[in-house]
Amino acid sequence: MHQAVSDRLARQLQFVRELDKLKGVQRRTSLIDRSRRENSAEHSWHLATMALALGEYAPPGTDLTHAIELLLVHDVVEIDADDTFAFDVAGNVDKAARETAAADRLFGLLPEDIGRRFRALWDEFEAGETREARFANALDRFQALVQNDAAGDGGTWYAHGVTRDAVLQRMAPIEIGAPDLWPAALDAIARAARAGHVREDPRGAGFP
Amino acid sequence: MHQAVSDRLARQLQFVRELDKLKGVQRRTSLIDRSRRENSAEHSWHLATMALALGEYAPPGTDLTHAIELLLVHDVVEIDADDTFAFDVAGNVDKAARETAAADRLFGLLPEDIGRRFRALWDEFEAGETREARFANALDRFQALVQNDAAGDGGTWYAHGVTRDAVLQRMAPIEIGAPDLWPAALDAIARAARAGHVREDPRGAGFP
Repeated sequence: MHQAVSDRLARQLQFVRELDKLKGVQRRTSLIDRSRRENSAEHSWHLATMALALGEYAPPGTDLTHAIELLLVHDVVEIDADDTFAFDVAGNVDKAARETAAADRLFGLLPEDIGRRFRALWDEFEAGETREARFANALDRFQALVQNDAAGDGGTWYAHGVTRDAVLQRMAPIEIGAPDLWPAALDAIARAARAGHVREDPRGAGFP
Repeated sequence: MHQAVSDRLARQLQFVRELDKLKGVQRRTSLIDRSRRENSAEHSWHLATMALALGEYAPPGTDLTHAIELLLVHDVVEIDADDTFAFDVAGNVDKAARETAAADRLFGLLPEDIGRRFRALWDEFEAGETREARFANALDRFQALVQNDAAGDGGTWYAHGVTRDAVLQRMAPIEIGAPDLWPAALDAIARAARAGHVREDPRGAGFP
């Protein structure tokens, strides 16, 4: 009997169908027009395309196509583990365990060789030790900053009463992974402070 | 005076903010759970990630990282030109002109060297003459097929009364750009025909 779909392809297609669910995972960040919250799939596209447009700000020697692969895969575990609010103390206690279980299940859907490749990309992003992982992480933070800055009303920073110190701490990976973008980040944070969109009060909590 | 953001980076950031709008462009295809229509940004992420998972089905010699770049950029013009229904006769008359104007404006926001690079990617995808462009186009069609197949109710095929011949014609680029996926595509189309999700009646029109 003719078999159109090999067992191997069937596993790949199951993974492709599973990916569709990332479109339903909501992040804290909103679209610039504030019409709705952003989902993790469209966010991942935005980051990968930013890597193409802003590649020159990556440190010398960064393999941009590899950074793009990291960005495409970095949020896939949220299909099971959901997006964790950056300053959600309880949520972050078991975040690593939830995400590891998600990686086991999701990448385990794939044929072993491909699953291992996806898992290695996700592990590399999480470890943040390579130039590419640090640049990818910098873009992840930078995109949230651009969205909040462009929203004109402080976006999720203002909505959640976030302090300037919390923003600076959250954005620090930009200085590490894309130092040439750091002055622009500081500029946006200073603008938000002047406009009263981030709080000076150190007791202000939370981070979107 | 300290200038945190060069004119060059300012142009790149304007483009990055503009990209956000692709998240608001709706396609005909729905999410698999049929909760809502898919937008072109999350769709582009899905395709680029599929290229990672299904790369082995690309014809020998295909540069997958280049195919991923094409997929990230291929729908950006829809920010201005919107998604055109495949079988919308009136909409397709001026589609090329609308999309070219969109490419002029959108990629023209970027510094000239980067704008030219984005424009070349979009032109290459549209021309469909390279191996990478044909594989990218094949994945674009294949993803819609997978979504419709998985929806279990015929998805947009059934909703729009699409005929089997129209589906076969629409999916033909899969045979050209990713022949190893074509048997799986034929399999899904046969399944849809058996279930009555695509019409046999050649007078049925439209294509989602």
